[in-house]
Amino acid sequence: MKRTTLSIAICLAAMTGYGQTQDSIMFRRISDEILLHGTCYENLRVLCKTVGHRLSGTPAAAKAVTWGEKAMKEAGADKVWLQKVNVPYWYRGKESLELRLNGSYKKVPALSLGNSEGTGGKPMEAQVVMVGSFDEYKALPEKDVKGKIVFFNYRFRQDFVNSFDGYGDAVAYRWNSPNVAAKRGAAGVIIRSMSTGMDDHPHTGSMHYEDSLAVKLPEMAIGNETADALEAACKKGAVSARMTSECHMMKDMVPSFNVIGEIKGTEQPERIITVGGHLDSWDVGEGAHDDGAGCVQSIEVIRALKAIGYRPRYTIRAVLFMNEENGNKGGHAYADSAVARKEQHVVAFESDAGGFSPRGIGLEMSEAKKNHIRQYKHLFLPYNVYDFDHEEGGVDISPLYHKHKVPMAGLMPDSQRYFDVHHTPNDVFEQVNHRELKLGAAVMAQFVYLVCEHGLE
Amino acid sequence: MKRTTLSIAICLAAMTGYGQTQDSIMFRRISDEILLHGTCYENLRVLCKTVGHRLSGTPAAAKAVTWGEKAMKEAGADKVWLQKVNVPYWYRGKESLELRLNGSYKKVPALSLGNSEGTGGKPMEAQVVMVGSFDEYKALPEKDVKGKIVFFNYRFRQDFVNSFDGYGDAVAYRWNSPNVAAKRGAAGVIIRSMSTGMDDHPHTGSMHYEDSLAVKLPEMAIGNETADALEAACKKGAVSARMTSECHMMKDMVPSFNVIGEIKGTEQPERIITVGGHLDSWDVGEGAHDDGAGCVQSIEVIRALKAIGYRPRYTIRAVLFMNEENGNKGGHAYADSAVARKEQHVVAFESDAGGFSPRGIGLEMSEAKKNHIRQYKHLFLPYNVYDFDHEEGGVDISPLYHKHKVPMAGLMPDSQRYFDVHHTPNDVFEQVNHRELKLGAAVMAQFVYLVCEHGLE
Repeated sequence: MKRTTLSIAICLAAMTGYGQTQDSIMFRRISDEILLHGTCYENLRVLCKTVGHRLSGTPAAAKAVTWGEKAMKEAGADKVWLQKVNVPYWYRGKESLELRLNGSYKKVPALSLGNSEGTGGKPMEAQVVMVGSFDEYKALPEKDVKGKIVFFNYRFRQDFVNSFDGYGDAVAYRWNSPNVAAKRGAAGVIIRSMSTGMDDHPHTGSMHYEDSLAVKLPEMAIGNETADALEAACKKGAVSARMTSECHMMKDMVPSFNVIGEIKGTEQPERIITVGGHLDSWDVGEGAHDDGAGCVQSIEVIRALKAIGYRPRYTIRAVLFMNEENGNKGGHAYADSAVARKEQHVVAFESDAGGFSPRGIGLEMSEAKKNHIRQYKHLFLPYNVYDFDHEEGGVDISPLYHKHKVPMAGLMPDSQRYFDVHHTPNDVFEQVNHRELKLGAAVMAQFVYLVCEHGLE
Repeated sequence: MKRTTLSIAICLAAMTGYGQTQDSIMFRRISDEILLHGTCYENLRVLCKTVGHRLSGTPAAAKAVTWGEKAMKEAGADKVWLQKVNVPYWYRGKESLELRLNGSYKKVPALSLGNSEGTGGKPMEAQVVMVGSFDEYKALPEKDVKGKIVFFNYRFRQDFVNSFDGYGDAVAYRWNSPNVAAKRGAAGVIIRSMSTGMDDHPHTGSMHYEDSLAVKLPEMAIGNETADALEAACKKGAVSARMTSECHMMKDMVPSFNVIGEIKGTEQPERIITVGGHLDSWDVGEGAHDDGAGCVQSIEVIRALKAIGYRPRYTIRAVLFMNEENGNKGGHAYADSAVARKEQHVVAFESDAGGFSPRGIGLEMSEAKKNHIRQYKHLFLPYNVYDFDHEEGGVDISPLYHKHKVPMAGLMPDSQRYFDVHHTPNDVFEQVNHRELKLGAAVMAQFVYLVCEHGLE
């Protein structure tokens, strides 16, 4: 009896050891496959250089859908299809911002914020009132701001180590300034970009108008160098600005698509793991980090798992979502379809924080599920992934989480460089490093493998 | 009595709590000071753009010494001085590599390896013999290699997650190929660069000649794209190459300097903590990551600790070492001086792995000392530094470690991008991100603070 017990103990230990070894070996096979033969970097080059930026509703976004479908097929997905999504179409048109800092007007680099209404293409000229915060603005006498262009000079805080904390801290000035300003009679808004950059790139991004407000003020972002110059000039004396912009939201929605590819599960094909990124981008640069990276990494998960001959228990889907930037219609369409079809989603994993070196996997799910994942932390450490303590998912998969209670996870790459290029003309292919991009894809594929093998109950 | 015991317990708990809080607060102050007001990025710009590359013995290296002395003074060091070092001077001169892959000769991007002897400026033409490894070379009949130019086509392994492992694996082909080749009568050597780059930059770096060999073969490195083309051509048929190079080691050593700045310790000034990087670089690019970054970070440690008014118990020294790349004369001079003056060195900390986002601190010291440091790991985690499990120091501080048994530590930044630019014309200021550079400096200053406060016995 003693002997039998011992044998069982040895056997169990050996099995556990074997299981661990098997997982480590598979993690390594996935990493080797992607680091040595990954096609995500080349895919990103093609997306960036032949499609370029691809705002929802534009012909470029339609071209990106065609690219995505082809790339997904080339990756070896068992099935590839397009899922219909109606998306808003915001039109930028011509725009300019001129500042009179001393004497004469001079054009400066500027971008209207996404979803905003412009000046109807006509110059709108007014004195500039600079404030450092919403509170400072609200404290000014109404006569001092009425008819003025308000410069919200709130700085992106560089003291946060995780730059997403700085973004979270500052982004209300992009999202909400026209509403705050309109309530006290201002004529327009200029903001300091949501930027860690030591340069002059303006950063676009979405804003919104409160339904209750009849007035829709134009809003433009300027880069840090221009903002510094404007700040200095405002401190010295009177400054005026001339905003001219044609931008507006089109009345009609435009038909578009999510691109979906999958590997059919062998044992429980009805259970689905989703990995994804978003295919649309802002209408500047090439949407390389945001979020071409997430798209090509998701496609790479399919390609690599196929290439190493892995036969997953569950169905694995890669989804290139449409319209994350200004509506999240793709995310909602995917979640609605999942609910309508009564799909069983095990987990959804998004990469939408740039194609940088991975550091962690954010987990937004029950504590029990988090702890289930965390017991495999040591498997990720050789791939420089150590952080499983943050709640992160992704905008595109959040409707799945909210409507369908699907656990979600988010790739957490190093954040130092993201807000230098985010939503700027400088978010181009050349800003992405091939090894960093591939390592991120490897970690996504490893996570998918892990959930396939060990479930997430 | 019970009450007293309890009081002592509470008191001790409070003190421990207080100590922890104090450390956390100081870590934050250091980080805030550097992320918000750090001058290291601007210092790096000046070094890269006004001095540029600065190989030991060159006028540029002398200019870099002057720059370093000034920067150290501006940082607020209590004392700044130059330490004499005699360094070798390797002269590159004109060089070209032409390949006849099909029909006619065409010039390709190539760099002679550092310390190598060229062709005396005269063209040296021979057939190319390609081998994948030393073993493959040794297995060839001598008649097949005699008088030939050997192309050592060993690939930098991209499957290592830590790219320094790939470098360690491949670097013998740069360091030793001319010796291996000469022993069997070859006329010259071409190597595939030690490069993770998906580009055509050749990477220079040091090589050596064995004393026992009378023949000093010329050695040139080519970038990955040229190497791929050469590989393909060699597989097809006969290929020849024409090497022309003037490079040679100058007979005489040249006087140069380590640049040293220090903050005098308040309680035990005789005990010294050294932080450093190396001031010399290869003679291409701007030596931005290698190792301008380590220099400006070391200066930043002095500046930031001064700026926040920290009064260290021990003396803190920042050292810009001369001649790491091809001789390590600066490191030896510093260690020799330490021995001669009977200096008491507590620890030496080097940054020479690029100005990338920090991930860990390598520790090369006794297990007891390692464990002493590791008990403060949690303090570094908010700064994304989690890895204290590797033995790393630095070339410059290694003589201090070997001759003087001084514990050494090395900053471990993310390694993914380093070997794309290392020793290439592309190691320029623009490759360095301001936040990544500053975070590395913050971690160095935090480490120095920690050792000042808690010792390292």
